[in-house]
Amino acid sequence: MTGSAQTSSAKEKILFTPGPLTTSRTVKQAMLRDLGSRDITFIQAVHNIRSTLLAVAGVSRETGYEAVLMQGSGTFGIESVIGSTVPPEGKLLVIINGAYGDRIARIARVLKIDTTTLEYPTSARPAATDVDRMLTEDQAITNVAVVHCETTTGIINPIEEIGQAVKQHEKAYFVDSMSAFGAVAFDMEKCEIDFMVSSANKCLEGVPGFSFAICRRDSLQATEGWARSVSLDLLAQWQGLEANGQFRFTPPTHAILAFEQALKELEAEGGVDGRAVRYRDNYEVLVTGMREMGFVEYLAPELQGAIITAFRYPRHPRFQFDDFYMRLNDKGFVIYPGKVSSSDCFRIGNIGHLFESDIRALLVAIRATIDEMEVTLSGN
Amino acid sequence: MTGSAQTSSAKEKILFTPGPLTTSRTVKQAMLRDLGSRDITFIQAVHNIRSTLLAVAGVSRETGYEAVLMQGSGTFGIESVIGSTVPPEGKLLVIINGAYGDRIARIARVLKIDTTTLEYPTSARPAATDVDRMLTEDQAITNVAVVHCETTTGIINPIEEIGQAVKQHEKAYFVDSMSAFGAVAFDMEKCEIDFMVSSANKCLEGVPGFSFAICRRDSLQATEGWARSVSLDLLAQWQGLEANGQFRFTPPTHAILAFEQALKELEAEGGVDGRAVRYRDNYEVLVTGMREMGFVEYLAPELQGAIITAFRYPRHPRFQFDDFYMRLNDKGFVIYPGKVSSSDCFRIGNIGHLFESDIRALLVAIRATIDEMEVTLSGN
Repeated sequence: MTGSAQTSSAKEKILFTPGPLTTSRTVKQAMLRDLGSRDITFIQAVHNIRSTLLAVAGVSRETGYEAVLMQGSGTFGIESVIGSTVPPEGKLLVIINGAYGDRIARIARVLKIDTTTLEYPTSARPAATDVDRMLTEDQAITNVAVVHCETTTGIINPIEEIGQAVKQHEKAYFVDSMSAFGAVAFDMEKCEIDFMVSSANKCLEGVPGFSFAICRRDSLQATEGWARSVSLDLLAQWQGLEANGQFRFTPPTHAILAFEQALKELEAEGGVDGRAVRYRDNYEVLVTGMREMGFVEYLAPELQGAIITAFRYPRHPRFQFDDFYMRLNDKGFVIYPGKVSSSDCFRIGNIGHLFESDIRALLVAIRATIDEMEVTLSGN
Repeated sequence: MTGSAQTSSAKEKILFTPGPLTTSRTVKQAMLRDLGSRDITFIQAVHNIRSTLLAVAGVSRETGYEAVLMQGSGTFGIESVIGSTVPPEGKLLVIINGAYGDRIARIARVLKIDTTTLEYPTSARPAATDVDRMLTEDQAITNVAVVHCETTTGIINPIEEIGQAVKQHEKAYFVDSMSAFGAVAFDMEKCEIDFMVSSANKCLEGVPGFSFAICRRDSLQATEGWARSVSLDLLAQWQGLEANGQFRFTPPTHAILAFEQALKELEAEGGVDGRAVRYRDNYEVLVTGMREMGFVEYLAPELQGAIITAFRYPRHPRFQFDDFYMRLNDKGFVIYPGKVSSSDCFRIGNIGHLFESDIRALLVAIRATIDEMEVTLSGN
């Protein structure tokens, strides 16, 4: 696939962020319709989306999986899984190496779920052996949660190794694959995942408005009566969709139509593998260009995914992030602040409807901006 | 304002439903942009929307009110208020005369909030004297909730009289004005409302994706530490918007841009008063035409709002609602099933981007449909 975000949405800024992202013109145009939530065309769109999501995940209803859409942002989807799938007297282990792991633990605690954590520096991968040890030591744990691609740094966590440990102990396993699903291939069954959440406006390149969970049907059906919310009741949402194809509460019809189109465009690109190639190319062009200018990545390259990359602030007195951000913004390029507490970083995403030409245009703009700011970089 | 839904979105079905609704072409076109959630243009849109919502409600920040947007459908907004504004040891009184009152009580019970109800038939208005008596008898009650326009029947409940009773007892007062806000004028202060919720895709004619609360600032600030959810934490959502104009979690950027445009179109129509006139005209044309054909409304006319109207099934052996619905649907007109448990009804909404010509076209289609079905009506 060729193209560029610039040509497809003339004069709009290009988003190098973790989302909302730049989407294709055709995805946005799919929203130029008002469909009733009981309309057969809409119900068919929801049906298609649910089936396609399972296919993207490499599973199917026949192999025992279900896709559930949930209104709200990705965090709403995560809270829906945490609040609906931990038993009333259950205990959750959250594996944390960034802000999104932290958020899962915070959600669980606000929901008054007994919660314990296994914490790592943001620059390190969790170890499955630690998870195994925790589960051996604390038999009260019933559920384990981990983030797949920690958007904090862009690190890819070893969800398969952790999943093996979780399953040895026969616990329920939740993977927050918000930023990775659709662009990082993984095997739901080998990973032993019971519940996985991602969002419409990440690697699947839809617009924001809802998230979705891919669930092992058996694991989902076992949660009857556990939900701590009506709006965010995962099982009831699934049961509603199964009963008549409709949402229990008003769905974001326009965002869902955009997503149906986005999934067609994913398929046209060659599915997860095709998209992964484009993102990997974007990433390679980005880091090569950034390194040439003297920028340094926060993570060791072998830990880094191709989704979003954190770069350290240049050690130069005239580098001020807000100034850098606004100058790039004024040139039409939107990057993202850092979220690493101990280090000064900014982040550049390369997901969304972005192509090599967009990355190269960004690099030119960054070069011009550091020159304007009279910042010199020395590969600090 | 003149126009018709048919001319503005050629060939699409027209929605005579309680939402999602038919919206203007220009509202949908506002979604043809991808803005970052930290983008200054987007932050300005959110700021404009929050200010305009207060103006539509006839209040302002200076008089002590705040507008908070919440991701998800209207029900998510309601759960956010119920879960965030009832104290940990509080007790909620829910006034019920329809399915949406029932839903509030269900939400509260799932959230393990001590809940009591005051129930009426769906064809009757609640009485403020009953509320006063309940609050006198049960001093444990801290919060009172009522639905403004019960979409079950379209009845308009006496929120001002109830508000006076609630305030005499110094309780917190929540009004679910989902279906009425923006088309039924009311005085937040005279009604003594602490928290009011409505949705983007009701009378304000945006697209679905978020709801909003208008809150007395003092009442909102008093809820520190009470929220039973992270995603649906009303106070934290407000604090986030106040801190930097941004949402805590990814906002539905496209739906929000559509809403900004929808609010401009509300103003161009003459605000709440102008919109109320159009909806009232739609309603008058609808009921006049339906009565002429022999259809009978469920509610007594003096209880009926101009938002949505429930009609009894004709007493004729060949009238089957599903058949009636599908025949109208095939002609391009989408109506809504009933939700009145004790009576067989269907509902017709006249909110959204609908004009007299659309209502007249619907009436012609209904006439043709009952003729096709060989149903005779006798004003049963």
